Amino acid sequence: MSVNLKGNILVTGTNRGIGLELVKQLAEKTGPETQIYASCRDPEGTRAEALRNVANRFPGKITPIKFDTADEDSISAAFQAVSQKLGAAGLNLLINNAAINKPSAPGSLSATRKQDMMEVYETNVAGPFILTKVFLPLLQKAANTRDEGDDMSCRRSAIINMSTVFASVKKCPETFHMAQMYPYRTSKAALNMLTCCQAEDFRRHGILVTAIHPGWVQTEMGGEQAPLMPQDSVAGMLRVMSTLSNKHSGLLLDWEGNTIPW
Amino acid sequence: MSVNLKGNILVTGTNRGIGLELVKQLAEKTGPETQIYASCRDPEGTRAEALRNVANRFPGKITPIKFDTADEDSISAAFQAVSQKLGAAGLNLLINNAAINKPSAPGSLSATRKQDMMEVYETNVAGPFILTKVFLPLLQKAANTRDEGDDMSCRRSAIINMSTVFASVKKCPETFHMAQMYPYRTSKAALNMLTCCQAEDFRRHGILVTAIHPGWVQTEMGGEQAPLMPQDSVAGMLRVMSTLSNKHSGLLLDWEGNTIPW
Ligand SMILES: NC(=O)c1ccc[n+]([C@@H]2O[C@H](COP(=O)([O-])OP(=O)(O)OC[C@H]3O[C@@H](n4cnc5c(N)ncnc54)[C@H](OP(=O)(O)O)[C@@H]3O)[C@@H](O)[C@H]2O)c1
Ligand SMILES: NC(=O)c1ccc[n+]([C@@H]2O[C@H](COP(=O)([O-])OP(=O)(O)OC[C@H]3O[C@@H](n4cnc5c(N)ncnc54)[C@H](OP(=O)(O)O)[C@@H]3O)[C@@H](O)[C@H]2O)c1
Repeated sequence: MSVNLKGNILVTGTNRGIGLELVKQLAEKTGPETQIYASCRDPEGTRAEALRNVANRFPGKITPIKFDTADEDSISAAFQAVSQKLGAAGLNLLINNAAINKPSAPGSLSATRKQDMMEVYETNVAGPFILTKVFLPLLQKAANTRDEGDDMSCRRSAIINMSTVFASVKKCPETFHMAQMYPYRTSKAALNMLTCCQAEDFRRHGILVTAIHPGWVQTEMGGEQAPLMPQDSVAGMLRVMSTLSNKHSGLLLDWEGNTIPW
Repeated sequence: MSVNLKGNILVTGTNRGIGLELVKQLAEKTGPETQIYASCRDPEGTRAEALRNVANRFPGKITPIKFDTADEDSISAAFQAVSQKLGAAGLNLLINNAAINKPSAPGSLSATRKQDMMEVYETNVAGPFILTKVFLPLLQKAANTRDEGDDMSCRRSAIINMSTVFASVKKCPETFHMAQMYPYRTSKAALNMLTCCQAEDFRRHGILVTAIHPGWVQTEMGGEQAPLMPQDSVAGMLRVMSTLSNKHSGLLLDWEGNTIPW
């Protein structure tokens, strides 16, 4: 099944889990006019072997990019590399997928140190904040290139922030005792706010910004008991991304397109 | 007018602004069985002169406590000092008031550095997180001391986290262009999540946790154009705190008692 996405797409955290599956399905389901920039911390290392295998299956379509979302200098270097490749077209879609969860589940108050709070925030919020700030000129370029008036979409210019239902304060009373995860929850609630701020800020540029909850997915982070396979979660999210328009900017949706309350 | 609050009360960031006014009105409006622990970074310094003047007006009622909410070691030292003074009674009310807002308003994306994101989160979220974790045994002691079954209140044992309407993701579309303040908004949205997590976590201990928005108040942070004076905001918040019960734990209320959506 194909998806209604195209252009230059950058995904972070693509050496495993949901990020790897996003790259795989984007490569399979988009046409030849799509280029995928697959970022991870060490594209040459052993932990990126699966990504290299996927890239080899689609020659010329996937470009591995090296940066750590918690390291500003590496982001700036990646910006230089990517913008040279993109030229005038700009970046159509940025998927902020990379994230961490510390301490490991259940992540009770007593098990959580200040350092966990700071590190998780750095990767999950300050990372997407800086990455988006640095890549904004490329997103603006893409938004300007396609003359679609006020119409926003993931084909024109968009940011997808990977959030979670655990970021919903409204739903916290029903979800807290499944998985306390103080640093992760507070970071993703902040990411939801970042999403809404960016949506308000970038509307004037024609850039859509939406947060998506992938469901509870079998990955290193999701664990083995998760009911959803990466394939199904990602297929759902790509369907959702294909349909996003102005009215979805600034919302938190799940992988099936349902709105989750803040 | 008196308020329905008593016992041992700790307020952070009390050398100026809303924190100073909280200490003043708590001293004025509570009975002799109330002890106020007024924390600030430098109780002996020139910036704490106003606090010392208030303390001198109420001999024996206000104890200045020195710590920086961004410095874990100073929090541990303060815990030792406070717990010795409290003895068996424990801590009845902890008001996490200290906070920062950087860069200065309007705080646009382009003016905001990664360091701002990290520093604001450290003070506004990691600070209250660690402070509450460290002081939890004293709050539990107070909750156990008063045998009120499942009934929670600010007289028995409670945490008040000073939040803001700018922390509401739901209201972000209507408030964003007044004051962008990315680091502050994301930090306070995270503080709302922290409030809800703590409320769920500490319910079993009989500890109430509520976030309060003080209104837009004339302080160094609020600026000169703010419509509300600290006196009126604090009078309202103390009225609200006096009435809090089980059903308010885990909510964000404003200084007049209205619920603000997440
Ligand atoms: N799985 C679920 O059930 C679930 C549910 C809700 C939301 N989510 C969200 O979905 C996204 C993907 O999660 P996942 O389950 O695929 O997680 P995962 O299996 O743990 O994979 C996380 C990915 O992020 C990368 N990463 C972490 N920190 C990084 C950094 N500083 N710089 C660059 N890359 C970094 C990891 O790279 P390394 O290999 O180098 O560490 C890895 O590629 C996350 O945002 C997560 O919060 C997942
Ligand atoms: N004013 C408003 O309109 C408004 C609106 C919504 C919410 N709020 C919230 O209300 C609370 C009080 O605000 P305010 O208007 O009174 O602010 P303020 O005038 O700027 O005062 C902030 C206080 O926090 C202290 N503080 C900051 N960082 C600290 C740290 N690391 N350790 C210890 N103390 C620290 C400051 O001490 P120093 O003197 O040492 O810096 C000062 O006493 C904050 O949580 C704020 O977010 C205010």
